Amino acid sequence: MNFDDLARRPSAWLSCQGPLGEVVISSRVRLARNLAGFPFLTRATDSQRCQIQRLVWNALVEAGQGVDAFYVDIEQAHELDRQLLVERHLISRQHAASKGSRGVAVGAAETMALMINEEDHIRIQALRSGLQLDEVWKVVSGLDAALEQRIEYAYHPRFGYLTACPTNVGTGLRVSVRLHLPALKLTGEIERVLRATRDTRLAVRGLFGEGTEATGDLYQVSNQTTLGKSEEEIIHDFRHLVVPSIIDYETHARKVLVRDKAAALDDKIFRAYGLLGHARTISSEETLGLLSHVRMGISLGRIKDIDLQTVNDLFLQTQPAHLQKLRGALLDGEQRSIVRAELIRRRLGNGHNPG
Amino acid sequence: MNFDDLARRPSAWLSCQGPLGEVVISSRVRLARNLAGFPFLTRATDSQRCQIQRLVWNALVEAGQGVDAFYVDIEQAHELDRQLLVERHLISRQHAASKGSRGVAVGAAETMALMINEEDHIRIQALRSGLQLDEVWKVVSGLDAALEQRIEYAYHPRFGYLTACPTNVGTGLRVSVRLHLPALKLTGEIERVLRATRDTRLAVRGLFGEGTEATGDLYQVSNQTTLGKSEEEIIHDFRHLVVPSIIDYETHARKVLVRDKAAALDDKIFRAYGLLGHARTISSEETLGLLSHVRMGISLGRIKDIDLQTVNDLFLQTQPAHLQKLRGALLDGEQRSIVRAELIRRRLGNGHNPG
Repeated sequence: MNFDDLARRPSAWLSCQGPLGEVVISSRVRLARNLAGFPFLTRATDSQRCQIQRLVWNALVEAGQGVDAFYVDIEQAHELDRQLLVERHLISRQHAASKGSRGVAVGAAETMALMINEEDHIRIQALRSGLQLDEVWKVVSGLDAALEQRIEYAYHPRFGYLTACPTNVGTGLRVSVRLHLPALKLTGEIERVLRATRDTRLAVRGLFGEGTEATGDLYQVSNQTTLGKSEEEIIHDFRHLVVPSIIDYETHARKVLVRDKAAALDDKIFRAYGLLGHARTISSEETLGLLSHVRMGISLGRIKDIDLQTVNDLFLQTQPAHLQKLRGALLDGEQRSIVRAELIRRRLGNGHNPG
Repeated sequence: MNFDDLARRPSAWLSCQGPLGEVVISSRVRLARNLAGFPFLTRATDSQRCQIQRLVWNALVEAGQGVDAFYVDIEQAHELDRQLLVERHLISRQHAASKGSRGVAVGAAETMALMINEEDHIRIQALRSGLQLDEVWKVVSGLDAALEQRIEYAYHPRFGYLTACPTNVGTGLRVSVRLHLPALKLTGEIERVLRATRDTRLAVRGLFGEGTEATGDLYQVSNQTTLGKSEEEIIHDFRHLVVPSIIDYETHARKVLVRDKAAALDDKIFRAYGLLGHARTISSEETLGLLSHVRMGISLGRIKDIDLQTVNDLFLQTQPAHLQKLRGALLDGEQRSIVRAELIRRRLGNGHNPG
């Protein structure tokens, strides 16, 4: 895999082409699985990790279910390349940072990825633009079934699939939907909506950025429990109860803003646009916040001269590893802020204009 | 006088055409005088105020020294028109707000003004762009001498000219220079420089805005004492000691910023430019702060596509009364912020561009 090329590519899951893409950034399903006959990773030797890696990869290639576009040996990969994969949501931060034999198999267009030896032996994920939970569930469960024909999973007749962490035992399923909720943030209703969501035993956290703070008004909503409900029930609740109600709140808040606070709304949107188009140095966090407002401006038809794709690319490419890959150099924080501002100005069409 | 036309005109003293105009906005001299045979205004009847007004105006017309472009009866003037004169620095806030017969005679291009019945019977001022203290002193003292041939001033052989407030007794002279000191503000050296200035018994305060806070990094430095020094000594010290040293500090700070902090400096400058070009609603205070950075950007050659005159016009025309005159309507604070943002976008060439 050429990581420089990867950094230049848009991520299909960030394309906003999917259903309800103006609010739902992406839908993700992941399954946790472990091989029978091997200990959980906390107690596995590196020789066992190597065996697991080989077994799973062979099964993947035989299964031919589309996760074989490229394979990255994370243990061997450069730190910057690992970080790049994290920024593209292909591996977890933990997978990048841990030790020992481990890897990730990535499908074409990066809509599928399979981590080997992360917290569990196997983590399968599918990720698509917009609200497509049924579709991502279909490809994940298809791959899961194909693998199960070739390798034996650790399974308990009463508990279901066994996982390293008890919260995943059962279905081993985590469903998550990434939402862009700038209007609820602006109207101050976000906390109420998120509290209601948490009350239904769903987890909510920020999408980009280091902490759990929702930088750029991007939120990830996911299920907490994996036991006592079937996969289909979990997905059905998500698809038909939780997500539509949040979308309704956000859509309504956007309408209210346009109707009652058009000047204040446009002020937010165009100030963000003006700052992004003119800043000479800008942090990742400020960038996300401003991009969020610009994205809302495009969705609401207030900004017409750039498209959502440009904003989505910037969400991805203004991250630290992407910036360094695009620039072809290791950069410290101060240098990144300058290069980030340059990239944004160029993409917004202000690259050569000193104003 | 047509106040609508006045609001549209640039102010000559804000033109930046004068010497050292990149740092020195303007030079001003004013004299306080009172007529012999009349009480100070705190104890004058309105009939006496009327007599003073008539006597002074007649003397002005006879003297023919260029303060007869137009006369405004402040008592009769609409409040918005009074405010307009304050914003153009032709009358003081006190003169606009007080009661009784009073007026102002204004010269061509507004470089001279004579207030009648402000704190003293007569306040003569001359105001010019850049550092032109000798020139403003010349026209003020010329008018003063011409008036003294026609009306008798209250004068005490030992104290000099008598004034309503003891701080003006003696020469009745106040010299002030308006300075733009954004680099000293950015480098954090401003307080030290101003403290040194105050130690030499000079007053420093903000130029625009309600309070004494220096909005837009614009400072007014003026003498505190009027007793024990001749007019020429006061002006000489100002011209050759105080002002050049502040200019040197500011010029040096600008060079240091360009040399050592070009990215941070450009960031400040272009963010200000971007915000002004894109905001949909903006307060007077924020406007002044941003215009200040843009003005510095033009002075330093970082912004090339607009000129200082545009920025100077905006300093003047984004003030509340000017905005309302230009719009031809009374506007509340919220409406003014929207109209202000529109005016700025139009003047910066972003008026029709939604981006």
